[in-house]
Amino acid sequence: MLGSFSYKNPTTLYFGEDSLNYLSSELSKYGKNIQLVYGGGSIKKNGIYDKVVAILKANNKEIFEDAGVMPNPTVKKLNEGIRIARENNIDFILAVGGGSCCDYAKAVSVSVYCDDDPWEKYYIRFEDVDCKVVPVGCVLTMAGTGSEMNGGAVITNSESKLKIGHVFGDNVMPKFAILNPEFTFTLPKKQMVAGIYDIFNHICEQYFSGEDDNTSDYISEALMKSIIHSSKIAVLNPEDYEARSNIMWTATWALNTLIAKGKSTDWMVHMIGQSVGAHTNATHGMTLSAVSLPYYRYIMPYGLHKFKRFAIEVWGINDANKTDEQIAQEGLSAMELWMRELGLTMNISELGVNNDMLEGIVDGTIIMDGGYKVLERNEILEILKLSL
Amino acid sequence: MLGSFSYKNPTTLYFGEDSLNYLSSELSKYGKNIQLVYGGGSIKKNGIYDKVVAILKANNKEIFEDAGVMPNPTVKKLNEGIRIARENNIDFILAVGGGSCCDYAKAVSVSVYCDDDPWEKYYIRFEDVDCKVVPVGCVLTMAGTGSEMNGGAVITNSESKLKIGHVFGDNVMPKFAILNPEFTFTLPKKQMVAGIYDIFNHICEQYFSGEDDNTSDYISEALMKSIIHSSKIAVLNPEDYEARSNIMWTATWALNTLIAKGKSTDWMVHMIGQSVGAHTNATHGMTLSAVSLPYYRYIMPYGLHKFKRFAIEVWGINDANKTDEQIAQEGLSAMELWMRELGLTMNISELGVNNDMLEGIVDGTIIMDGGYKVLERNEILEILKLSL
Repeated sequence: MLGSFSYKNPTTLYFGEDSLNYLSSELSKYGKNIQLVYGGGSIKKNGIYDKVVAILKANNKEIFEDAGVMPNPTVKKLNEGIRIARENNIDFILAVGGGSCCDYAKAVSVSVYCDDDPWEKYYIRFEDVDCKVVPVGCVLTMAGTGSEMNGGAVITNSESKLKIGHVFGDNVMPKFAILNPEFTFTLPKKQMVAGIYDIFNHICEQYFSGEDDNTSDYISEALMKSIIHSSKIAVLNPEDYEARSNIMWTATWALNTLIAKGKSTDWMVHMIGQSVGAHTNATHGMTLSAVSLPYYRYIMPYGLHKFKRFAIEVWGINDANKTDEQIAQEGLSAMELWMRELGLTMNISELGVNNDMLEGIVDGTIIMDGGYKVLERNEILEILKLSL
Repeated sequence: MLGSFSYKNPTTLYFGEDSLNYLSSELSKYGKNIQLVYGGGSIKKNGIYDKVVAILKANNKEIFEDAGVMPNPTVKKLNEGIRIARENNIDFILAVGGGSCCDYAKAVSVSVYCDDDPWEKYYIRFEDVDCKVVPVGCVLTMAGTGSEMNGGAVITNSESKLKIGHVFGDNVMPKFAILNPEFTFTLPKKQMVAGIYDIFNHICEQYFSGEDDNTSDYISEALMKSIIHSSKIAVLNPEDYEARSNIMWTATWALNTLIAKGKSTDWMVHMIGQSVGAHTNATHGMTLSAVSLPYYRYIMPYGLHKFKRFAIEVWGINDANKTDEQIAQEGLSAMELWMRELGLTMNISELGVNNDMLEGIVDGTIIMDGGYKVLERNEILEILKLSL
């Protein structure tokens, strides 16, 4: 049954090959001082940096560079971003990059006017924002996290080895996001498929929960079918605009609150994967792919009806003369085959995890209660062992 | 391929059994003078009127009644609404009802400060809004039109027998909409199924167009499957909250711009159905159901691949050892069976159309060019004859 909820998503999206043309009119709504957030410099190689800077200059903006955002943005980097914003009286934060840049920009945006320690306030105590928020915009160069149209921001504390996400409210969502599928063409294949699996798993996390009949689950199945279909094309030809555009659009709708409406959600793959990420600094999507199948095979008996539906509706498994368990297992086998074809990392050993690290990863895993089984500590350890 | 587009939907939705509780906080954002728009008085019988008025009074609002909005709101009624708004310096228009009330409220909202004749400006010349727009909110009592989260407003000119819709921009979308599935329980069954078919046809209009691979089409299939499933439950038990809530939520997403993104759309069933409505004043959903199958069977050869996909994905037609035509036909037959089971009107004779009226209905039909076949005048006549 659809539960009670509210829905508000104020982010404006510009999608397509000419979408960067809309940056000027959006920037005109904000003040002069722009904090330009980006990562390791790939946007300088592919020319996107030059295009964005030209638009900023044409609009007489003062640019304050905030480069070097890492794949798993750290508390240390966050504090650097806060300092840049405070010292320069920043009016607007423009993130040019993937989910890490966008997450980081949002984490800075809620921290500039925060009197407390942001890590403690937002990521340990999960408190709400009660200060002024600096507006954020995003030029997306990688499809995956959905960060361009939601209030989420994951930050990693390297010292305590904790990687934690906070989902902020609609006042923290980007004011606008520019989605040009061509900007994702130069991404290395490994990053592309990691992003694709991140998208797919976002949908799984919201789908594998609840016993009700819910429109959101139908939409989830649609998004899964679209991403599976387009991923097979994109992995053969990364410059297939149609496939990359479907992937980019699906990424946005996989995690902009829509498919979680009226239902419970799981998020345990992300919790385990994030803890793996905190201990290895591995690519986010690969930490998810490496622990997914052991997790789903473990919880399958507790949500058998949904895994059966998943097999039939998403993977087209023929259900004639089979038990529910057989159908559900065949669905997960089809998923595994697809994951292997994409070239995803299928175990945590490849990410640098060894036996000695497992207890620490369990310690860093936040246990959620929305899925088909609330895991015990020893069950997380068991799933990690099966993922080795 | 996903074309270029922008997406912005600023409407805030409150969904669920307690959603009316949010009316107070939303109203606090606007001025004192409220134009209260409603229809024929059913909201007085089922108690919704009293609840809304109590909230308005508790918020010290001045209520200016604008009752009697008919199922197909007329130009004459629109002018009355404009007069009420102008004479009372209205700050906010609150529509309590179904799509007609919500459409009408939006049509008034863009006309109060319009120096031109609104019918001529918006519905004959299709011009943009260039005046102040009075903000609108909606308490929905019927699921169907999706008007609660879009900029559309259909108005009927009884004298010239024209029923025309204008899709306004995001500044005309309701500021908020309150969706309580229980508010739809007392709706007569005929109105409920007409609404269900309106929803389904909104999806068809956006689905049956384009040759590309598009995420929007996957989402359309999901919404169709959800509405078919829930409609079968609701028609047997109209007070099944789960089914009615899925129908209500699906209605919103069937026509709030999402599933049209990046693709072409058709809308010819609505164009023919609206002209039938202008000549008969029949229930909107029934004008659509009465002309749909003759139209879709007529255009099927021009979009065979999509009708085949529709049959397989939406209706679960087995495609083994069949031609594409057979598969597509079986899909439309399954759709017809479902429509008959719901009790929809399947021909325009039952709506009061006779042979002598056909030429006039053709004259009032706006010909669109986004579908699989741009119809000639004689083809519309042919489809109408097949619908008799």
